[in-house]
Amino acid sequence: MKEIAKLMDYRSDVRVVDATMRDGGLVNDFYFKDEFVKDLYLANLRAGVDYMEFGYKASTELFDVNKYGKWKFCKDEDIRAIVGENATDLKIAVMADVGRCNYKEDIRPREESPIDLIRVATYLHTIPAAIEMIEDAVNKGYETTCNIMAISNGREGDIQAALELLGQTPVNGFYIVDSYGALYPEQVARTVDMFLNAAEKYGKKVGIHAHNNQQLAFANTIEAVGDGVDWLDATYDTMGRGAGNCAMELLLGFLKNPKYNVYPVVQFIEKHMTKLKEEGIMWGYDLQYLMTGLLNQHPRTAISFTKEHRSDYTEFYKELVVQDE
Amino acid sequence: MKEIAKLMDYRSDVRVVDATMRDGGLVNDFYFKDEFVKDLYLANLRAGVDYMEFGYKASTELFDVNKYGKWKFCKDEDIRAIVGENATDLKIAVMADVGRCNYKEDIRPREESPIDLIRVATYLHTIPAAIEMIEDAVNKGYETTCNIMAISNGREGDIQAALELLGQTPVNGFYIVDSYGALYPEQVARTVDMFLNAAEKYGKKVGIHAHNNQQLAFANTIEAVGDGVDWLDATYDTMGRGAGNCAMELLLGFLKNPKYNVYPVVQFIEKHMTKLKEEGIMWGYDLQYLMTGLLNQHPRTAISFTKEHRSDYTEFYKELVVQDE
Repeated sequence: MKEIAKLMDYRSDVRVVDATMRDGGLVNDFYFKDEFVKDLYLANLRAGVDYMEFGYKASTELFDVNKYGKWKFCKDEDIRAIVGENATDLKIAVMADVGRCNYKEDIRPREESPIDLIRVATYLHTIPAAIEMIEDAVNKGYETTCNIMAISNGREGDIQAALELLGQTPVNGFYIVDSYGALYPEQVARTVDMFLNAAEKYGKKVGIHAHNNQQLAFANTIEAVGDGVDWLDATYDTMGRGAGNCAMELLLGFLKNPKYNVYPVVQFIEKHMTKLKEEGIMWGYDLQYLMTGLLNQHPRTAISFTKEHRSDYTEFYKELVVQDE
Repeated sequence: MKEIAKLMDYRSDVRVVDATMRDGGLVNDFYFKDEFVKDLYLANLRAGVDYMEFGYKASTELFDVNKYGKWKFCKDEDIRAIVGENATDLKIAVMADVGRCNYKEDIRPREESPIDLIRVATYLHTIPAAIEMIEDAVNKGYETTCNIMAISNGREGDIQAALELLGQTPVNGFYIVDSYGALYPEQVARTVDMFLNAAEKYGKKVGIHAHNNQQLAFANTIEAVGDGVDWLDATYDTMGRGAGNCAMELLLGFLKNPKYNVYPVVQFIEKHMTKLKEEGIMWGYDLQYLMTGLLNQHPRTAISFTKEHRSDYTEFYKELVVQDE
């Protein structure tokens, strides 16, 4: 059981990462209006958020620039147009996926860029490629994290081997990414234990990125922070792929560090998120995401179900179970 | 950390209580159609649910029978019209509130009634009245639980004193009721610890009834069951007052006892709950409930906000904070 003293106090090492535009961009193909982005930046500043992730550094060879908004590619000049010199305490992050970016060219040296942190997203079987990207980014002067996706499908032996490899790189942190929203808090505790063992050995931090398929994104995040995880991802109004993520408004309400402030988050949601939903942008907990989470599957089938405006949950459940044979 | 073996196995003492009509009735003034009730009964049977709570035994002197549906009053004959002799494994429950029912007359001897379990709802300061009701119900032949509401406002000394008093009654179980949806899982663990100490001393069971103000109703329920709580309340599609409750579909997906089956729950939700929402019945997590949960307040202001179709969350937050002075 966690100590009461620890619950009333706070750990100053905790870092809150706003992933609204990156994970939320997966829902609207990264078409955020400039006013939205500017307001989100200002809200994060006022809320005391530590990092703001603007989107992906995606390859323009793999992804058609006419089919996605600019935050799929996060050019330095586009970020600069929002943040100027960013002479603030809020750091800027982007995500770079193994195999889906052209990092050697698209990630410029840090002194030329407004970006502070490169988050390298990888599956367990592409760790060597992730390491190459981490080394490239570190050589260019960036902070880095390695975000291991689909962790609920990873075997402990494989995860431990991956963490040993990553421990020997200059990466700053290892991220637990529950892409399928399949983990229960007890499983998070066990996963954190494994990650922290390696992190302590190599002097790294641990982070968590949760999905809300089973209404556990916030619960799993606070389980993790109670267990010693420092980097916490959250999104405004849970905006993110499928069932969405840990709600920023819940997380800042929970964290006791007085530098965090939930009020600007509420203001932003009222001004922008309600409108997005009225425009037909869809995310958030619903039965179809519960089902893929429960079955530990990628949410892609549930996302299609949502996009087709289906509500025949029973039929969908049958499809999933049959497909699982 | 909970043992893996315990997570893969199950405790046969666990009992799932469907509170959809009772807590959900607070949202639609207990106007459920007979088809809804009949289908819910059948769904519970097929899902392996252990208890179905039909509503309240409310006083017809305090509550106008023309302003509420029949499940506010749960007459034996109305339940009988749905369940017949109820020759099944599903037990029937109703709730009786201290000070809001006329239990001496309205609760008939068990042999005349389809009801199995009387759940006595009380605040900490009305425990003696609750005990009188428990003794009355036990003398009439019923199983009983004592559901202590607004537990997040209770001081440990008061809770312990209440449990000592209740321990000496013939009540079957003590319920932790997080009426305000204010508890975090760590606080649930600590509360469970206190309840279990008294329960073990007196040979009682412990139950939990959670609210979803901070998207933690399910997380808090599975925290509790992992800590040794046996009676678990849930509602279909979280239907319940304000932010709603622990979702039955999440809970049955989590519990490992093969007698539980999530599929009938999905079918019921598809057939009935979507329709209720289209008819304008409102419940479920939203920012206004997060705020009252965070501030550990009764959700009544948030419920008004919802009923007035307001979406000025910022203004509402200001109102709450000012009122909190």
